[in-house]
Amino acid sequence: VSVRLDPPRLIARKRDGHALSVDELRALLDGYLAGEVAEEQMSAFLMAGVLRGFTTDEAVTMTDVFVASGDTVDLSDLTGPTVDKHSTGGVGDTCTLVVAPLLAACGAQVAKLSGRGLGHTGGTLDKLEAIPGFRVDLTPSRLHDQVERIGLAVAAATGDLVPLDKRLYALRDVTGTVPSSALIAASVMSKKLAGGARHVLLDVKCGNGAFMTDAPAAVDLARLCVDIGRAHGRQTGALVTDMSQPLSQAVGNGLEVAHAVDVLTGQREGRFRDLCLDLASGALELTGVSAAEARSRVEQALASGDAAERFRAMVEAQEGDPAVVDRPREVLEAAPVVQTLRPGAGVVAGWDCRRLGEVAAGLGAGRRRKEDDVDPAVGLEVLAPIGTTLEADDAAVHVHARSSDDAAWAVGELRSCLHLAEGEAVPTPALVLERVGVEGT
Amino acid sequence: VSVRLDPPRLIARKRDGHALSVDELRALLDGYLAGEVAEEQMSAFLMAGVLRGFTTDEAVTMTDVFVASGDTVDLSDLTGPTVDKHSTGGVGDTCTLVVAPLLAACGAQVAKLSGRGLGHTGGTLDKLEAIPGFRVDLTPSRLHDQVERIGLAVAAATGDLVPLDKRLYALRDVTGTVPSSALIAASVMSKKLAGGARHVLLDVKCGNGAFMTDAPAAVDLARLCVDIGRAHGRQTGALVTDMSQPLSQAVGNGLEVAHAVDVLTGQREGRFRDLCLDLASGALELTGVSAAEARSRVEQALASGDAAERFRAMVEAQEGDPAVVDRPREVLEAAPVVQTLRPGAGVVAGWDCRRLGEVAAGLGAGRRRKEDDVDPAVGLEVLAPIGTTLEADDAAVHVHARSSDDAAWAVGELRSCLHLAEGEAVPTPALVLERVGVEGT
Repeated sequence: VSVRLDPPRLIARKRDGHALSVDELRALLDGYLAGEVAEEQMSAFLMAGVLRGFTTDEAVTMTDVFVASGDTVDLSDLTGPTVDKHSTGGVGDTCTLVVAPLLAACGAQVAKLSGRGLGHTGGTLDKLEAIPGFRVDLTPSRLHDQVERIGLAVAAATGDLVPLDKRLYALRDVTGTVPSSALIAASVMSKKLAGGARHVLLDVKCGNGAFMTDAPAAVDLARLCVDIGRAHGRQTGALVTDMSQPLSQAVGNGLEVAHAVDVLTGQREGRFRDLCLDLASGALELTGVSAAEARSRVEQALASGDAAERFRAMVEAQEGDPAVVDRPREVLEAAPVVQTLRPGAGVVAGWDCRRLGEVAAGLGAGRRRKEDDVDPAVGLEVLAPIGTTLEADDAAVHVHARSSDDAAWAVGELRSCLHLAEGEAVPTPALVLERVGVEGT
Repeated sequence: VSVRLDPPRLIARKRDGHALSVDELRALLDGYLAGEVAEEQMSAFLMAGVLRGFTTDEAVTMTDVFVASGDTVDLSDLTGPTVDKHSTGGVGDTCTLVVAPLLAACGAQVAKLSGRGLGHTGGTLDKLEAIPGFRVDLTPSRLHDQVERIGLAVAAATGDLVPLDKRLYALRDVTGTVPSSALIAASVMSKKLAGGARHVLLDVKCGNGAFMTDAPAAVDLARLCVDIGRAHGRQTGALVTDMSQPLSQAVGNGLEVAHAVDVLTGQREGRFRDLCLDLASGALELTGVSAAEARSRVEQALASGDAAERFRAMVEAQEGDPAVVDRPREVLEAAPVVQTLRPGAGVVAGWDCRRLGEVAAGLGAGRRRKEDDVDPAVGLEVLAPIGTTLEADDAAVHVHARSSDDAAWAVGELRSCLHLAEGEAVPTPALVLERVGVEGT
């Protein structure tokens, strides 16, 4: 069915609270791609959608059109079950570096296209590039062969995946139209669908370090993403997880790699390790394994060292120094200056997690603008998760900096990121707030 | 106070339901004028405003910035009280041609800048140009001298009045962001403020032939316009009036002039005459005259023939044929074809008034696009206002057309504009629904 394109009428329908039909929405988005719908018409439509909402059907249609706007990756001739995992972005969130090897060790195939950090959140490619020699610019055939051979690869996208989402995101960024669950879900899921995996597990972050600070909104987003994935025939699940404090104790590229290696080699426990196991187990469940069996296989893959060896194989295949698995703190560049925040006695009641990410970025670990370079060595080690009792001289954060001035600035900033309670016990926030489409154990 | 311009933040504030400060709103609009705020940012802001609303203070600020964006007319050295009257646009609304002469005859000075018709509504300049020889392109000094000498002039704007409103209206028209009381009020009032009169009476039309179809919304718009005018030191009032049927029985340029002359020369009574008296009396009230005194002076100006002589003086001064006052149907061009709609027996229960305007425009009386010419001779005479009892062969509308084909088309279209009731009496709709800032009698 063809629809004569009448952008003002379609905008007015959304403005007045109506859902657009599949044909109407397709006509509008295709018209935008073709230059027949002006930027100012699309931004008005998006604002109407932000305030009036989109239906699940509309989100599914938008995702469709996003995917169809560019290249897609074909993983159909890989022999194992293809799995992808995606985080909506957090602080100290290095899960991919542990989850991908865990899944590969359990027989899944992970051909993960990752991004770079922007603003207060880090990017997986930046982290991996902290490993000397590591290359993220794999050709499609090299990526494909590596995944078939060792079960995993993490690389930059080569083709022009989902260009409509990129163009719309740039428009949304300058027009106050980012906060729409449907637009966020369509953006996330279109990239996952274009990435080609048949099984997709999402880690929807929630808390003051995430884009979603409100738990019900994060759960709605997770459900919408799962609905979109299923509508496109992908086995899709989601965990909604806490981001009210840094997930790993490290925030910064090389520091996060070292902590991920610690988990893979059995030398670090805690929330970061727990979530990696939950995510890997949830993703494996989506391939048709029972929750209990998935948990058991994932724990075995970690305990046996198989996951660590998969990580080493990936580093080797992508030309990084494999010794990073054995001696991460020798292989990874160390920052020249380390200063420590000792905030005094008290119980850690909370972190301004987003601000922690911004401070790490300010030290050089992240980017303010896309064209900035990142520093692999700098960042924060946050030693005191929520609930920790600190004595008068205890360290709360080690700042790894390029200069003493940078370190002093960061220590000063960090004081106001930490909320100390006097005397009373502070409960640890739950790690997994909700599971959608996966059972867990 | 200067505000660093951050459009996405200002858009997000409006999106989230906040009012912008005077400085913020000025910075945004000035930035748009200067090209520092993109079209897509302004349209997103406008959509947020349409859905979240603007405060009266915001509407006042927008009006300020609109006026300051272009030229203004200085009427301060005219000797009488300067009065302007504005209609939000209707069908068969020729009031200016009667009200301006009435006010001039009562000692007020009316330097009216008028517009042309677009869509289903007519424009005063088009109507006056139906008078052979009539010129609307007066220089500012000629307009000024004419008003000082005879009390009235109706002309096209010469300077660049309120260019920001023109630019924003073009944007709103294509982005579904027209329906906002504050934007409409700022648009109307900025033009009145730039026009220079100290006393402003608004005729806010309401009904199926007006832009506002909903009475409470029309009353809100009237109040907002009055608040804006007063905030700028102008004596401002408004009548909210019915536009559920053509106001005058004529719809079309020359036909409307003839009917206006009929009223001025005492040969026509009815709703059109009644509203002209109400508007002129209300406008006179704003100059400090009591409602009773205003009404008495206006009635006297009509009965004495003074108003008709003022109209003749204006036509002469603007080079039109003054005999139009004595023999309008000889001086004005007649359409070559007249056909009549005889809809059968019944009581007239309603008119699709907007559609009537569109049919008249379709005959050539109006424009689809700005660059179209209008035909002075064609249009409709609607003989049967709501409540009229028609016998089987009674005429309801005379169609004045350029060709038989046009006339036949119009008669066909008109059948579906007329709603006939069987048997029961139908009440006449009230003419004035609300008065704001004027007392009336």
